[in-house]
Amino acid sequence: MQKSENSERSEGQGAGAEQVASESPIGDWGRCSADAQYREAVVDLLGALAYGELSAFERLAEDAKLAPGLEEKAALAGMATAEFGHYQILHDRLVEIGVEPSEAMQPFRDPVDSFHRMTAPSDWLEGLVKAYVGDAIAVDFYREVAIRLDSDTRDLVLGVMADTGHAEFAVGQVRRAIEEDPRVGGRLALWGRRLMGEALSQAQRVVADRDALSNMLIGGAEVQGFDLVEVGKMFNRITEAHTKRMAALGLAS
Amino acid sequence: MQKSENSERSEGQGAGAEQVASESPIGDWGRCSADAQYREAVVDLLGALAYGELSAFERLAEDAKLAPGLEEKAALAGMATAEFGHYQILHDRLVEIGVEPSEAMQPFRDPVDSFHRMTAPSDWLEGLVKAYVGDAIAVDFYREVAIRLDSDTRDLVLGVMADTGHAEFAVGQVRRAIEEDPRVGGRLALWGRRLMGEALSQAQRVVADRDALSNMLIGGAEVQGFDLVEVGKMFNRITEAHTKRMAALGLAS
Repeated sequence: MQKSENSERSEGQGAGAEQVASESPIGDWGRCSADAQYREAVVDLLGALAYGELSAFERLAEDAKLAPGLEEKAALAGMATAEFGHYQILHDRLVEIGVEPSEAMQPFRDPVDSFHRMTAPSDWLEGLVKAYVGDAIAVDFYREVAIRLDSDTRDLVLGVMADTGHAEFAVGQVRRAIEEDPRVGGRLALWGRRLMGEALSQAQRVVADRDALSNMLIGGAEVQGFDLVEVGKMFNRITEAHTKRMAALGLAS
Repeated sequence: MQKSENSERSEGQGAGAEQVASESPIGDWGRCSADAQYREAVVDLLGALAYGELSAFERLAEDAKLAPGLEEKAALAGMATAEFGHYQILHDRLVEIGVEPSEAMQPFRDPVDSFHRMTAPSDWLEGLVKAYVGDAIAVDFYREVAIRLDSDTRDLVLGVMADTGHAEFAVGQVRRAIEEDPRVGGRLALWGRRLMGEALSQAQRVVADRDALSNMLIGGAEVQGFDLVEVGKMFNRITEAHTKRMAALGLAS
């Protein structure tokens, strides 16, 4: 996402990256990590994000094969490279807090791999829409979660997020393809719905399986109760942002 | 390659990166590029290197799928990411000197793709040996060619080369596998020979096809004559360095 896109998308989403600069209401990692459940939740979060990024690298590199030309191939390879950079940051942070990255990532391999297996693009445009939508959903999710984190983890997560901005390339290509042949829009709109559906379905699986992570996502470190209504609201916010983006792309969602 | 490996390998290779720091006997790009043949040769060189790097990115990302675990997968993805960084530098330089990168890369797609098609690894260890050998041959080639370049192009080429250093990971993994099962060594030695054979065969194809590039590689910008003996000598030096490396890896070459 480019910064202009980001600020557009942050409207109506509550907390944006802008207002999060220094303090967190719950304090820093040193204070929060004394709570075993909070610590477990952050390890889960970093593990999930790290595996998501590593997996995004793999899929983008794979989808680069579908590129019609060398410049397009390089653009997707560049996005893959950026994802790997994010992975590296998350990996290093896990090591820093004394966690084996492979172990932290393990619980999320199956849902993430399932998502990618169910959404393997069949052509270049589907690959681009997936890259764009996937990047955007990731940014929305990073935003949702950042406000609930200790200041150190939040800075890390927002830092990783700020480095995206490669998907703008995808937007241009997809818009052009729809202008050239409007029927493409119908097919890609369907594809976008499928991407969002699979993402939500795997996210719900994670929520059901990982109690500490879910509690944190829903209510912050201080809240212990598991509130399905709050989960639903978060997913709704992310879905709404997705809908707006698809419309901006010229796709009904 | 790590720096220690580099200095080992630079023995007996004539010019190493160490002595090349400021001046070039032929001057800078501004002076040299006035010669149309020299310019053509450098565009070829940058195009060949750029496509080689983009292609290396793709193949390493592909071979990362063969990794036995997440840490190993990430290591190969990291190597791929570094190759993409090199691609980006070479790409940007082509743009800077007014050349369309895709066009500069085009003549080298077929030989590079053929090399990769003929040397698709069948397992993780073959992938690692390929990553290591490929990286090393690239460094040797960059060294051979750097001494013949104008100072600007040379600094660029040496800068790209200095950023390698990820293949050390491959060395450790391969050595361990051979220690655990010495029969693996026989198979991988054969594989190393095949890699070198295919690399030389494609390189000779390029030499035969690209006159300006070949003339520069052989004799520098000032020499116009095409000297097969010199080509042979350069290939021999690269082969000898390869042989030493394979031996250091515990493989007969």
